[in-house]
Amino acid sequence: MACMPRDPISAAERELDPAPLDAADPLATFRDRFAVPDPDLVYLDGNSLGRPPLGSLDRLARVAGQEWAGELAGAWNHWLDLPLRVGDALASAALGAVPGTVAVTDSTTVNLYRVASAALDDRPGRGVIVAAREDFPTDRYVLEGLAASRGLAIRWLDGDPIEGVSIREVQTALDADVALVLLSLVSYRSAAIVDLDAVEAAARRTGAHVVWDLSHAAGAIPVDLAARDVGLAVGCTYKYLNGGPGAPAFIYVAPRLQARLRPPIQGWFAQRDQFAMGPAFDPRHGIAGWLVGTPPVLSLVGVEEGAALIAQAGIEAIRAKSVALTGYTIALLDAELAPFGCSLGSPRDPARRGGHVSVRHRDARVLTSRLIERGVVPDFREPDVIRFGLSPLTTSFADVRRGVDALRELLTG
Amino acid sequence: MACMPRDPISAAERELDPAPLDAADPLATFRDRFAVPDPDLVYLDGNSLGRPPLGSLDRLARVAGQEWAGELAGAWNHWLDLPLRVGDALASAALGAVPGTVAVTDSTTVNLYRVASAALDDRPGRGVIVAAREDFPTDRYVLEGLAASRGLAIRWLDGDPIEGVSIREVQTALDADVALVLLSLVSYRSAAIVDLDAVEAAARRTGAHVVWDLSHAAGAIPVDLAARDVGLAVGCTYKYLNGGPGAPAFIYVAPRLQARLRPPIQGWFAQRDQFAMGPAFDPRHGIAGWLVGTPPVLSLVGVEEGAALIAQAGIEAIRAKSVALTGYTIALLDAELAPFGCSLGSPRDPARRGGHVSVRHRDARVLTSRLIERGVVPDFREPDVIRFGLSPLTTSFADVRRGVDALRELLTG
Repeated sequence: MACMPRDPISAAERELDPAPLDAADPLATFRDRFAVPDPDLVYLDGNSLGRPPLGSLDRLARVAGQEWAGELAGAWNHWLDLPLRVGDALASAALGAVPGTVAVTDSTTVNLYRVASAALDDRPGRGVIVAAREDFPTDRYVLEGLAASRGLAIRWLDGDPIEGVSIREVQTALDADVALVLLSLVSYRSAAIVDLDAVEAAARRTGAHVVWDLSHAAGAIPVDLAARDVGLAVGCTYKYLNGGPGAPAFIYVAPRLQARLRPPIQGWFAQRDQFAMGPAFDPRHGIAGWLVGTPPVLSLVGVEEGAALIAQAGIEAIRAKSVALTGYTIALLDAELAPFGCSLGSPRDPARRGGHVSVRHRDARVLTSRLIERGVVPDFREPDVIRFGLSPLTTSFADVRRGVDALRELLTG
Repeated sequence: MACMPRDPISAAERELDPAPLDAADPLATFRDRFAVPDPDLVYLDGNSLGRPPLGSLDRLARVAGQEWAGELAGAWNHWLDLPLRVGDALASAALGAVPGTVAVTDSTTVNLYRVASAALDDRPGRGVIVAAREDFPTDRYVLEGLAASRGLAIRWLDGDPIEGVSIREVQTALDADVALVLLSLVSYRSAAIVDLDAVEAAARRTGAHVVWDLSHAAGAIPVDLAARDVGLAVGCTYKYLNGGPGAPAFIYVAPRLQARLRPPIQGWFAQRDQFAMGPAFDPRHGIAGWLVGTPPVLSLVGVEEGAALIAQAGIEAIRAKSVALTGYTIALLDAELAPFGCSLGSPRDPARRGGHVSVRHRDARVLTSRLIERGVVPDFREPDVIRFGLSPLTTSFADVRRGVDALRELLTG
């Protein structure tokens, strides 16, 4: 047996070859629309900060060098409606929301506070907020503050570290005393997807508002806010939407709630006749009534470019590639990394998995640092997670292969 | 008499000649540090949007094209502390505040809401907010919202349309039921300066918190927050600070209040060990505990460049030029415009006047439009004000002269 010639490429190895996958990828050319100054860098952290679209760099130079410098305050004629225009673009490209329901403004944290606070105001007498113990920190801290100032209790859902929060847990936690449920659609750590429809249905039965944090979903999976009759959502724009570092976040309020809920922070950008500077707050209709202060223009224009690329690629095609990328990563993990102490920290069922793959290893922190030294950039999340963030518009299957190979070399070297 | 040769330049005319004033201006060269693509444009709206420092355009290109594109998420290593680093720079250059008391984050409106809300929480049982009826709209709208949600009354100060709010009015309005006083140090319409020290003293006697909106003061007049023991302040950075369109605002909380007041919006950038992503909110010391969400980096870096220019020029020298520019404008108004229906809408006493001059005329709106058509850009404010915004680092005396001449030609043409 030992002297028999070994098949140079086994069937299993062929399946794990990235070349045919990249060759068949209908979105492969989108990478050329982004600035990629170091093509050898394996960037697997686009779920933390997406790469810059080339269009954003051009746009930024134009907005600063021509509009700001040349048109000066007069440029507000075309900047004023940016938060709504970009919101509509995002609504259509990534969120499945109708025009007039999404604005791009402020940070995810501030928007979360605003919709959660307004939702709580709308459920006086109810004493409980339901949220996930393992949700992203800022979500939990915002709720803690709201609960403390209002004397409310938070009923924490434990969730499963890999599969996330189950609908059974949500149903058990919901009763007539719950004013608000806050959940991330995609877990920042495990990428587990919560069953949105089931949560909405359960909350509807007990009369609770639901706020969705879509930060790790937007631009990676279809969300369909309108079709699913979602009431309230927020999310950031600098991950899969490639809007730029700290680009303003989005806020979504369904038409049925726009007239009902009162924004807690009443600012002049929400005022009907803004430059009349009238004596009393008279909010604009629609999501415009949820604007606040002067928007950070230079950080906002990149979101419009990012949304345009999502629209051109199509969110369904993006999701299809995302499922293929995460599936490929898991296949490689099983074949190459599992024997060396790694385990999957994300759901195996693609329907329950968002756009990244969590690889668990007890030395995750130091392994992440050593990967970065070798030009492979995932990120580390406490306590034992290496996150492989896979951006369908810029990550190739070859990137994934190289990332896994580098990790295996570290584990075996 | 008719045949006597007329002195070609009278003494009065000589006094109104801008050339010697520009020649003697110690800050004249600062204009070269800004992008001025059209030198013929007379820009008198820097109190709405300041011109771009050349350093900001370079910095922006570098941050987007090199840091974002090249360092990707790793660039957060030097972006994370930007809100505090820029805050300290601003504290020192423009606000007379000590390190650790100023952060640059969010919008003026959001920051106003945050400090006002926290101040009200700190005065339970008091039922009144004192504010100026003619204050900038967003300030009034924020207070309206806070008052409505808490069942508080707002005691409005009428103020004088030119001289602003008097200390006597403030004293009359203050009693033991007042929780909070909100005032703009410099009026956005008339440029009147409120007597900060007297207001602080009066509020101290009755136990009210005071929040200052410094939007039209910062970068134009020295503020001296520490020396004057101011407790709470906010303000925007895109006027005299030249931070860029919608650049994040500043928030100031005095050390004596940092531990006492609780920020209403608890976000992850305020968390002590941010990336431990711990279970409970554990705020950082100092103004860091008032950060909220991820900062808009591209809109933030320009504030650092703007603050550096203020520091180099020196706020006292800036104030001296500002007083000279506004005084010159008023002298021209008296000589050239008053005969044609214009009147001064700003205090005549330079000690009571900020960095702009309001020229009142019943046709102010249409006159402003026609000035802009002629390449002279002030702005209009309801109901009858043409604001001549005078930026000490970029406005020349010749600009003022040309602006007044253009207005006189419209009035007499």
